[in-house]
Amino acid sequence: MSLYDLIIIGAGPAGIAAAIYAARKRIDFIVITEDIGGQAAYSANVENYLGYQFISGVDLISKFEEHIKKYNVEVKENEKVIEINKEKDIIIVKTNKDIYKSKTLIIASGKRSKELRIPGEKEFKNKGVSYCATCDAPLFEGKNVAVIGGGNSAFDAVLQLAKIANKIYLITNISYFTADAIMQEKVSAINNVSMLKNTQVLEILGDRLVNGIKIKRENREEVINVEGVFIEIGLLPNSDFAVGVDKNKNGEIIINSKNETNIEGIFAAGDVTNIRDKQIIIAAGEGAKATLSVFEYLSKK
Amino acid sequence: MSLYDLIIIGAGPAGIAAAIYAARKRIDFIVITEDIGGQAAYSANVENYLGYQFISGVDLISKFEEHIKKYNVEVKENEKVIEINKEKDIIIVKTNKDIYKSKTLIIASGKRSKELRIPGEKEFKNKGVSYCATCDAPLFEGKNVAVIGGGNSAFDAVLQLAKIANKIYLITNISYFTADAIMQEKVSAINNVSMLKNTQVLEILGDRLVNGIKIKRENREEVINVEGVFIEIGLLPNSDFAVGVDKNKNGEIIINSKNETNIEGIFAAGDVTNIRDKQIIIAAGEGAKATLSVFEYLSKK
Repeated sequence: MSLYDLIIIGAGPAGIAAAIYAARKRIDFIVITEDIGGQAAYSANVENYLGYQFISGVDLISKFEEHIKKYNVEVKENEKVIEINKEKDIIIVKTNKDIYKSKTLIIASGKRSKELRIPGEKEFKNKGVSYCATCDAPLFEGKNVAVIGGGNSAFDAVLQLAKIANKIYLITNISYFTADAIMQEKVSAINNVSMLKNTQVLEILGDRLVNGIKIKRENREEVINVEGVFIEIGLLPNSDFAVGVDKNKNGEIIINSKNETNIEGIFAAGDVTNIRDKQIIIAAGEGAKATLSVFEYLSKK
Repeated sequence: MSLYDLIIIGAGPAGIAAAIYAARKRIDFIVITEDIGGQAAYSANVENYLGYQFISGVDLISKFEEHIKKYNVEVKENEKVIEINKEKDIIIVKTNKDIYKSKTLIIASGKRSKELRIPGEKEFKNKGVSYCATCDAPLFEGKNVAVIGGGNSAFDAVLQLAKIANKIYLITNISYFTADAIMQEKVSAINNVSMLKNTQVLEILGDRLVNGIKIKRENREEVINVEGVFIEIGLLPNSDFAVGVDKNKNGEIIINSKNETNIEGIFAAGDVTNIRDKQIIIAAGEGAKATLSVFEYLSKK
């Protein structure tokens, strides 16, 4: 079995940027990933990736993909990492298909949004259903939207939509909102928000695009007309396989400014880490940074 | 005089990314800058900006510029910031033309490479003369190059060129190299490097492109044939105006992971800061991050 200098787990913006930098540094490496693009592919329209004024997540990812193809990066696609271990100085990565060995590792396995798991949610993803207000809020100029959730990220979504949308329904299924007080005060001061507690969202409705949600409260069902539904009920970092790597309470891998984890030789980048802002351009920068740290680490070995 | 929510100083990758994020957040802001593009515009060919396989620095910057134009960002161009001050909660920015007031500030004024100030240097910039091995090394595949300098960045440039260039001349004008021992050991192990101490570079020669350098050692002048000249004698952050903001010994503004400086309301991003890697994609991510911190700061005020 060959011993690589580097294995990169994941091929979203962080993993792809890490790969491009690794290829340019002539590092001997492979990428192991379930898919190309990660979360970024789900963004209906990306308007904040510097250099592209308007591009779909899918198209941006295909640009990224062309970019790694140019460097003949070896990508093990459709492989899921099950386990990582370090034995002496060697990192062992076990997937559903094979076992790989490497001197260093960059974990760039991203995150996934928690889903509501209700009818219409999958169907209208990118057709009115969004999991990222920062990405997609500007698409709903003058429209009615619903934000589902009661925590900081839901309130943050409302703040982001406040000056853009016509009317915002903020909906939680419990009797109170869990967001920080200051966030709640801010949202209370906005006059185009309706806050609905104890309200269940039963279904997302639409034709080609979202045109409403079916909700239930006080045992009555009703339909609200909205063209956008922002689901903000939390994120799950894809970090389960990284046993032994320090994580915060949200399961995000803790990194320092050099993208190092607590384990020597193991680095992490992008949305799987504890960086606050989950944004394509930031993840890409972090991926580049992680590889430059790996390069420095290998140089000093 | 109007009081802005935010002033961004600089319009390189960090400043432009900060501006795009600010526009999308509906923050009331202006950009003050001497030029558009900063250092990035000087890179002959950018191959590591995720999403573009091959683009000149100038073209990439023009993409960035189109991107900010789309958002009607107010850019005060050809203005040089002379001084910043904070009086109570208000930040006052004085330029060579005007005075502006703001609640927050992002310093993204970048860095400039130290120049040798010898004949041919300006003339052949981007025509064989480079100040960035990470950016430009791959352009010199199989060619002879000179690296001017004796510190870590010069040695790093040699390491980056080692597997790419045919022969590398590493030249310093003093009697020893100042790079870390480990860097010197690494470079000693490479067999296509000639190390020249006590050697002055008098002139960069060429026709349309660089074809040599005139050097002087032991009181004898000679010409070495090289097609690339990497000048790695240090960087100067454009931070002189930022009196009162904490800097490291290199004059770089010290930031935390939220891009905050020691002064409340003053943030910094990109190459003017103490982030280790000076790369376009990283600076862009940092610019985005700084604006998201400003947004959070303004939201909590």
